[in-house]
Amino acid sequence: MSLRETLAAIVGEPQLLTAAADMAPYLRDWRGRYQGSARCVVRPGNAGEVAAVVRACVDARVPIVPQGGNTGLCGAATPDASGEAVVLSLQRLNRVRAVDPANNTITVEAGCTLVAVQEAAAAVGRLFPLSLAAEGSCLIGGNLSTNAGGVQVLRYGNTRALTLGLEVVLPSGDLWDGLRGLRKDNTGYDLKQLFIGAEGTLGIITAAVLRLFAQPRATATAWLAIPSPAAALAVLTRLQAAFGELVSACELVSDVALQLVLQHIAGSNAPLAEASDWYLLVELSGGGDDAMLQAGLADCLGEAIAAGEVSDAALAQSGEQAKKLWALRENIAEAQKREGFSIKHDISLPISGIPDFVAAADAALAEAFPGIRCVTFGHVGDGNLHYNQSMVDQADNARLIAGQGAVDRLVHDLVTAAGGSISAEHGIGQLKRDDLARYRSPVELATMRALKQALDPLGLMNPGKLL
Amino acid sequence: MSLRETLAAIVGEPQLLTAAADMAPYLRDWRGRYQGSARCVVRPGNAGEVAAVVRACVDARVPIVPQGGNTGLCGAATPDASGEAVVLSLQRLNRVRAVDPANNTITVEAGCTLVAVQEAAAAVGRLFPLSLAAEGSCLIGGNLSTNAGGVQVLRYGNTRALTLGLEVVLPSGDLWDGLRGLRKDNTGYDLKQLFIGAEGTLGIITAAVLRLFAQPRATATAWLAIPSPAAALAVLTRLQAAFGELVSACELVSDVALQLVLQHIAGSNAPLAEASDWYLLVELSGGGDDAMLQAGLADCLGEAIAAGEVSDAALAQSGEQAKKLWALRENIAEAQKREGFSIKHDISLPISGIPDFVAAADAALAEAFPGIRCVTFGHVGDGNLHYNQSMVDQADNARLIAGQGAVDRLVHDLVTAAGGSISAEHGIGQLKRDDLARYRSPVELATMRALKQALDPLGLMNPGKLL
Repeated sequence: MSLRETLAAIVGEPQLLTAAADMAPYLRDWRGRYQGSARCVVRPGNAGEVAAVVRACVDARVPIVPQGGNTGLCGAATPDASGEAVVLSLQRLNRVRAVDPANNTITVEAGCTLVAVQEAAAAVGRLFPLSLAAEGSCLIGGNLSTNAGGVQVLRYGNTRALTLGLEVVLPSGDLWDGLRGLRKDNTGYDLKQLFIGAEGTLGIITAAVLRLFAQPRATATAWLAIPSPAAALAVLTRLQAAFGELVSACELVSDVALQLVLQHIAGSNAPLAEASDWYLLVELSGGGDDAMLQAGLADCLGEAIAAGEVSDAALAQSGEQAKKLWALRENIAEAQKREGFSIKHDISLPISGIPDFVAAADAALAEAFPGIRCVTFGHVGDGNLHYNQSMVDQADNARLIAGQGAVDRLVHDLVTAAGGSISAEHGIGQLKRDDLARYRSPVELATMRALKQALDPLGLMNPGKLL
Repeated sequence: MSLRETLAAIVGEPQLLTAAADMAPYLRDWRGRYQGSARCVVRPGNAGEVAAVVRACVDARVPIVPQGGNTGLCGAATPDASGEAVVLSLQRLNRVRAVDPANNTITVEAGCTLVAVQEAAAAVGRLFPLSLAAEGSCLIGGNLSTNAGGVQVLRYGNTRALTLGLEVVLPSGDLWDGLRGLRKDNTGYDLKQLFIGAEGTLGIITAAVLRLFAQPRATATAWLAIPSPAAALAVLTRLQAAFGELVSACELVSDVALQLVLQHIAGSNAPLAEASDWYLLVELSGGGDDAMLQAGLADCLGEAIAAGEVSDAALAQSGEQAKKLWALRENIAEAQKREGFSIKHDISLPISGIPDFVAAADAALAEAFPGIRCVTFGHVGDGNLHYNQSMVDQADNARLIAGQGAVDRLVHDLVTAAGGSISAEHGIGQLKRDDLARYRSPVELATMRALKQALDPLGLMNPGKLL
């Protein structure tokens, strides 16, 4: 029996895609940056079928590319051009297996959309706090495999911190049931940690037990004008001293970024009368009621204004107003896209190192690439900046993009010198594979390779990605 | 040159202990349960010396037993009886390398006591929340290697959740510098996760970057009489709905446990007029002031009383009163010790499964071992119970202890059936090695062994522990 026949027998003929038109959406990443090829796309319906598919591919020595919602930014879910691989889509593993509000856990299959997980939690009065732009179409298995971040990491942590248990099909085709819903479990090596963020190179996550939280009863949101990134740190420290973990978001926005939104996104309005070089979007959420929390925030911001950390502030007076403030932040990516191509850097730094990094990198870029425009924004509370570059003039911009490698090198060298990371939340995939090899130590790379070799000695799990 | 000569050359003659009297404290665990033997005890002074010691031992094919404060409960830091091993003490690596309040991080060497880490954080107005009974003598390297829990896991997580970066001497003798102080870093496999909780079997942690938090400004503490473990869950859910992550402790205490404390610990007083089968010690901490938080807690407990979840409550009116309530909880272990030997189980369960587990296990033990006394208490908010057994009569108790294996089996079988863990926070060490092999699946054990083989192919790192 050929591999295709074996796979068709496992998943059923309709779930094995071989026609070019059927396969096309699975072979190209959503940004159109990577175009791959595959011998087929297979869509198993449960973890047992995933395991059987893996075993069949292992027997045939055929590489496997696992794929979730295909919303990744680094090409980790796109096969290479050889046409050798089988793309294994997790889309049909989309059941919520269990919700346990008393344990504050939900057990979901890898193919659930992030929004479906959020909604299943909300249906029992709980919060699943992972939230990011692609949440309507990304799958939780992809979020796990890339250790996704998003806008609430400051308070609730990355996907890793939200994960209590996993079910994984190993590269051997064995199914590992690690679906434990425990807060404390020190029984040997914590295997789930290996698979989270491994981008499908060590196995295929088929299900997970995730943490839920009480839904916050009250929210307070404000848009602040601040003089500098250093002021952002001062405000963050002040808010955390006063409110601790109630500080659930702290987003830095440069005026350059805000102006792009005001220009390109209909219905956008500047929240403050006067422009400032930098802004901060802050949010508290917790118990009590909105009025109390907003009053507390107003008091604290009054102190920040007196200390010169904040020059002006707009406090949202309603959920509607808060949404409008958030839209300014969330529309930056879209506004940039409408402006034209840009070079994107998803970097992180020790929070304390952000002001110096931004000053040094802005200056170095201006010197090396005169006229360059830095669109700087991001989750400053997590030390995570989206530090993007473009030129206003389209012809200049095309030249800049063509020489992206030099921009990347300059930025990533400075990030590394400052003890930072060249990929804060998007992962490595194909996009940053060479960078990983450049910026991580030989000892670290050798240890990663030893792990890969131990779990996937045939090298069939998502080859050409990450390592 | 002999291994001893080589080691003396690395660390200096005074730091190589070979006399029986000098070595004795390192060869026996603090509870006196394990007595080992070693060719020498070596006390390196920095990470470079640790690496050199490991390389020397690898060259000589001699096993290494890393040891921190020697306060572990499972014998993971005690060498076996063969006398083959070198005990490597981390005590001298006791520097705080850096404190970065703006990044909310501290960088410490493995030989710092937990209390020293807490104090260095407090000195810059921050909280390092890991807290447990042995904090004055345990070393942070041991806390990391066992993924220690303690009394604030509910709010701040286990040691794993508090760790951003590690420096590790690998079994090869290579030093891996992973001391990154980043909240977000998705650059390949998250190697630090491997070493946390690995009990020194995959390498030797020499330093760590740990997370700090704002110090809570206000605290509210209460001791509650509750009718049952199920009521504990209802109260926890109620508190979390009202206060979210401000709920920083939720400790279950059975009346059996409280009575032991009142009997054996001088100065202990019952907080409530009438006895109840079960109690709950709860604590909130956060912003605002004590009076506000205490008023909020009182309101919420009033609702819990009206709902029948709580029969009586004592709210601490001062820090002194709160300390007395905490002393009742913290003295349980000491009171048990004074009462005589007991069989201890450090188990965890999905929180929702605790009431049924306690009922089922109490009943099964009573039937199998008539007259058995269950001393039940623990971090119910984490699903972590200390579920201990003894007999009141000393002769009966001696027989029970002699047949401990049967008690363990009954308890651990029920824990496993309920989806729980046989070691919530103490680890595996020598004590539970056979249990791990019994209760974890062949796939899980094989994967653990593959990791061990990949990182420590010679099997020299803390052999006979964990796996």
